[in-house]
Amino acid sequence: MNELFSNRISGVPPSFIREILKVAVDPSIISFAGGLPNRDLFPVDALQKATNDIFIEDGKDILQYSSTEGYLPLREMIAADYKRKGLEISVDEILITNGSQQGLDLLGKVLLNEGDEVLIEEPGYLGAIQAFEVYSAKFNSVPVHQDGMDIDVLQQTLKTSNAKLMYTVPNFQNPSGISYTNENRQAVAQCLSKTKTLLIEDNPYGDLRFSGEEKQSFKALLPEQTILLGSFSKTVVPSFRLGWIVAPKALMEKLVIAKQAGDLHSNYFCQRVLHRFLQDNDLKAHIEKIIAVYGKQKAVMEKAIERYFPKQVTYLNPEGGMFLWVTLPEKLSATTLFDKAIEQKVAFVPGDPFYVKKRGLNTLRLNFSSVDPDIIEEGIKRLGTVLHQLLDN
Amino acid sequence: MNELFSNRISGVPPSFIREILKVAVDPSIISFAGGLPNRDLFPVDALQKATNDIFIEDGKDILQYSSTEGYLPLREMIAADYKRKGLEISVDEILITNGSQQGLDLLGKVLLNEGDEVLIEEPGYLGAIQAFEVYSAKFNSVPVHQDGMDIDVLQQTLKTSNAKLMYTVPNFQNPSGISYTNENRQAVAQCLSKTKTLLIEDNPYGDLRFSGEEKQSFKALLPEQTILLGSFSKTVVPSFRLGWIVAPKALMEKLVIAKQAGDLHSNYFCQRVLHRFLQDNDLKAHIEKIIAVYGKQKAVMEKAIERYFPKQVTYLNPEGGMFLWVTLPEKLSATTLFDKAIEQKVAFVPGDPFYVKKRGLNTLRLNFSSVDPDIIEEGIKRLGTVLHQLLDN
Repeated sequence: MNELFSNRISGVPPSFIREILKVAVDPSIISFAGGLPNRDLFPVDALQKATNDIFIEDGKDILQYSSTEGYLPLREMIAADYKRKGLEISVDEILITNGSQQGLDLLGKVLLNEGDEVLIEEPGYLGAIQAFEVYSAKFNSVPVHQDGMDIDVLQQTLKTSNAKLMYTVPNFQNPSGISYTNENRQAVAQCLSKTKTLLIEDNPYGDLRFSGEEKQSFKALLPEQTILLGSFSKTVVPSFRLGWIVAPKALMEKLVIAKQAGDLHSNYFCQRVLHRFLQDNDLKAHIEKIIAVYGKQKAVMEKAIERYFPKQVTYLNPEGGMFLWVTLPEKLSATTLFDKAIEQKVAFVPGDPFYVKKRGLNTLRLNFSSVDPDIIEEGIKRLGTVLHQLLDN
Repeated sequence: MNELFSNRISGVPPSFIREILKVAVDPSIISFAGGLPNRDLFPVDALQKATNDIFIEDGKDILQYSSTEGYLPLREMIAADYKRKGLEISVDEILITNGSQQGLDLLGKVLLNEGDEVLIEEPGYLGAIQAFEVYSAKFNSVPVHQDGMDIDVLQQTLKTSNAKLMYTVPNFQNPSGISYTNENRQAVAQCLSKTKTLLIEDNPYGDLRFSGEEKQSFKALLPEQTILLGSFSKTVVPSFRLGWIVAPKALMEKLVIAKQAGDLHSNYFCQRVLHRFLQDNDLKAHIEKIIAVYGKQKAVMEKAIERYFPKQVTYLNPEGGMFLWVTLPEKLSATTLFDKAIEQKVAFVPGDPFYVKKRGLNTLRLNFSSVDPDIIEEGIKRLGTVLHQLLDN
């Protein structure tokens, strides 16, 4: 069978995170390894009501095949939300996708030839690495720091780069929680404006801000070159697999062809449920609830880290999102820590899979959104004990 | 922008059927052009009840992220249905997809390098042509006739072919309605058994049989080389976009990697609704209702054709499914007929898009599943008038 596989898939390894999550599924393990929203915050009753309402009003239509582009009134809502945030997006520029992960797949499909260069943040979102790896992309990475992308490295890289795409998560990045400052965004846009590189601004967490001011979208700074990815998975419901992609018209035509050839259209029933939910409920108020809970969980995690971790271990303080990024002393690999931590029934994701080239790194990702405060305290305490054992001698 | 597109997408034209369906959307047009199930048969009440039941019982879990492979109890149901039909399929060999269209996309992704050969029926399913075209397949086609695939041509083709895949819809094929006889299937399997070509048996309509006996699956005849595609779109509900792929373990591993990189997992909420529906309802009885209605609609269409069409126009009598295939006298192209028919407010799909190389053909597809009997009668009458005008001089 092996000789039949395409070159593109032969080079892609099984997901490291998948393997880790398999370990972490043991219920006796406190897991900071996942990337899940908090299930206690799902608007179960409101979604049930929205579902019943559309069944009663439009029972046959909601079950039929539909258009590749997605349900027009839902796309209109997305456009209206951008307008509130100062961006003029036409509904024709919006395609509903199966989560923003499918947006990445479609972009890879319509843009990347084998060996085409993709710039990615270091550390960067694993799902993007996987999506573009399938299209045999050649990665080049640019470090991100507390205030955003490393502009010196970006400038140097662009001098010799011929990248078709640069992938970014400028708000509360996965994995690092980093947000780009406005100044950093302007500098990034300035660098890219001299190139043909398209910039992907993936923004699944942007609405989940605990502190600080909302920042400028790259779409405002670099309108012709920016592609936006959005998702309802972190703000309303993950299981519906509904996200969207915003792209200029010429690119959108190709994306629609690829989407149609790929799966005809996204789940229309759930598009209708979601649209009805958004029509009848105050999404902003719902998001405020999520922010309050995640903000508290983040604060509990930080306080526990201050209390239990050795002082040589540092972390970045995220202004929003679901993740907190930890840096160990250089001599300690996060994979070594992982093996010891599992023995103490606590899990996290070591940094390695978020880097396209480096391995054995001293960084790790902690998820705080899906763990209750008292469990966070206990898990960090266990992790602190392991860290002290490894470092205090 | 154009210079940025990948080679794979640059060669794919916009869908011809999409353009035709845009014309046919005018409500004054009687359309036999679609490929839609009859919306009056959707089990609206039962799906609403299933949805409410799972919201009440498991409201949080049904909204969370889930596994790439799909909901295990749903996959177990699919395996059990195969077992009733005499096929031993393990749940590990089943992956839930966004309709069987995504199954085609994933197979293209993990198997096809640029220029790899794919064998396809002539006429063949347009969605498969589109899916594999995106992966720059080189097509070779084998004609199908009333009893199945042309074995002489298949034998000749395989002598020089190095095809990785052969795509078939052996039951009530789209577009032709043709079903392969058991003898034909055995001969096809015999030919392929001497090659490394994988055979895709796509079976979206197999349960919708009006007459004749159920035929052997290629999976029974050629177990190591056969990949099965299935779908709930024609038997329960299209808008959920739920289908599945059955593949040997080594191939399944790659498909799961591609699925994860492509969209993480299929809509989990709808997998749960569908599973609950299947648990609490008699699917066989529901399918019997569909068969009764489609069978009647097909009979009405045949009777109207006998009455209104010129005798030089012939058609194939399908034993099931949703389509009827018409052959015009050689001198008359179906595209010419289409233009005249639209003036008389009746639409269908000319044969051309179902062929990978030939154009200007004298064949066409009529859909009977989504049109009421009295409208079928009127539409065929109009088409007959146009045909007489074109042929009777």
